[in-house]
Amino acid sequence: MRPYETNPSAIYAQSFGVVQAEARLERFPTALHPIITRLIHSCGMVEIADRLAFTPEVVFAGHHALQSGAPILCDCEMVGAGIIRRYLPNNNEVIVTLNDPRTPDHAKKIENTRSAAAVEFWEPHIEGAVVAIGNAPTALFHLLDLIDQGFPKPAAILGFPVGFVGAAESKAELAANPRNVDFITLRGRKGGSAMASAAVNAIAAGLPEISNG
Amino acid sequence: MRPYETNPSAIYAQSFGVVQAEARLERFPTALHPIITRLIHSCGMVEIADRLAFTPEVVFAGHHALQSGAPILCDCEMVGAGIIRRYLPNNNEVIVTLNDPRTPDHAKKIENTRSAAAVEFWEPHIEGAVVAIGNAPTALFHLLDLIDQGFPKPAAILGFPVGFVGAAESKAELAANPRNVDFITLRGRKGGSAMASAAVNAIAAGLPEISNG
Repeated sequence: MRPYETNPSAIYAQSFGVVQAEARLERFPTALHPIITRLIHSCGMVEIADRLAFTPEVVFAGHHALQSGAPILCDCEMVGAGIIRRYLPNNNEVIVTLNDPRTPDHAKKIENTRSAAAVEFWEPHIEGAVVAIGNAPTALFHLLDLIDQGFPKPAAILGFPVGFVGAAESKAELAANPRNVDFITLRGRKGGSAMASAAVNAIAAGLPEISNG
Repeated sequence: MRPYETNPSAIYAQSFGVVQAEARLERFPTALHPIITRLIHSCGMVEIADRLAFTPEVVFAGHHALQSGAPILCDCEMVGAGIIRRYLPNNNEVIVTLNDPRTPDHAKKIENTRSAAAVEFWEPHIEGAVVAIGNAPTALFHLLDLIDQGFPKPAAILGFPVGFVGAAESKAELAANPRNVDFITLRGRKGGSAMASAAVNAIAAGLPEISNG
């Protein structure tokens, strides 16, 4: 077998170097370079940079929320599992309500998915929080619907639902009308829990692997 | 806001319908249609079908292993979090050794990453097991190296490391020389924990959402 790179720092540096070389980050505000770099790194696709939509303040708003102790609300366990806990600036709580025992019955009651029903259980936590959606379009759609009905607003929405039914549509709705909430999203079918976790990790800690050499 | 699909069965059916319509599954052995469908569904990218490599027996070998009670060995917590436990046919154990307290020191000792070091702790469990790699190229590289040195062999390798450094190379090595182990992998930079979990879920249970209507 051919030799391969085994040094973690060298792997990170080479990896982020590919992003630097291929992603034309200079077209984006400097404050967003770390989050875009981590998003690309999480999926191995430089081309996602071409379809991002965001408010320029999303990183500041999300980081400030975390520093203030706000929780992170995730639509599924995988997003929570990808959040690097030691990066969180205020020992922030990571909340996933999808497997709350009330969720299946509540989904039937509101005639929506379990993922959408789970969003309603965010109500006591969501004001000023960071929302990370990496799976379910219906979670994002329902969150936007709830905000239209007066639900408390998060500080930032990291919107990366994935797939063929509703993902592109829910992210287009977020980008077209973010309800005065800072956000970042990826237009189209692509997305996923790794991107949502990567966005949280970037908002929490930037790119420490590079800056720490 | 425009209406959106809220019925879970309809979402699954439409979603898998897009895969049927766009992925030209007829070019693959029938036994692999469910796993390829779930892989595509997990990432929203029909085009990954064009770059899969596999042994035709991988689904049978993996399913038989799970039915016999074999554990599932994952390279990171996100892969474990994406495995739908109720699908597992024999209450199979999901093992992640990345955060084993011995891993950081062992990584220094073997001069490799924590992900590679964690693979060595699979030794008591790996014979006849299902391996699911969704993050680290070094985990896959090191596993292949260990097998070359006489490490016990798993029943199946679901190989989906992602990124710019070693991902394409490690998967090319697996596809070129699978060491008499059944496998499925995606050539190139793309991959990820959602794909690795989706492969496990397909091997465990096929596509129950469709067959159960």
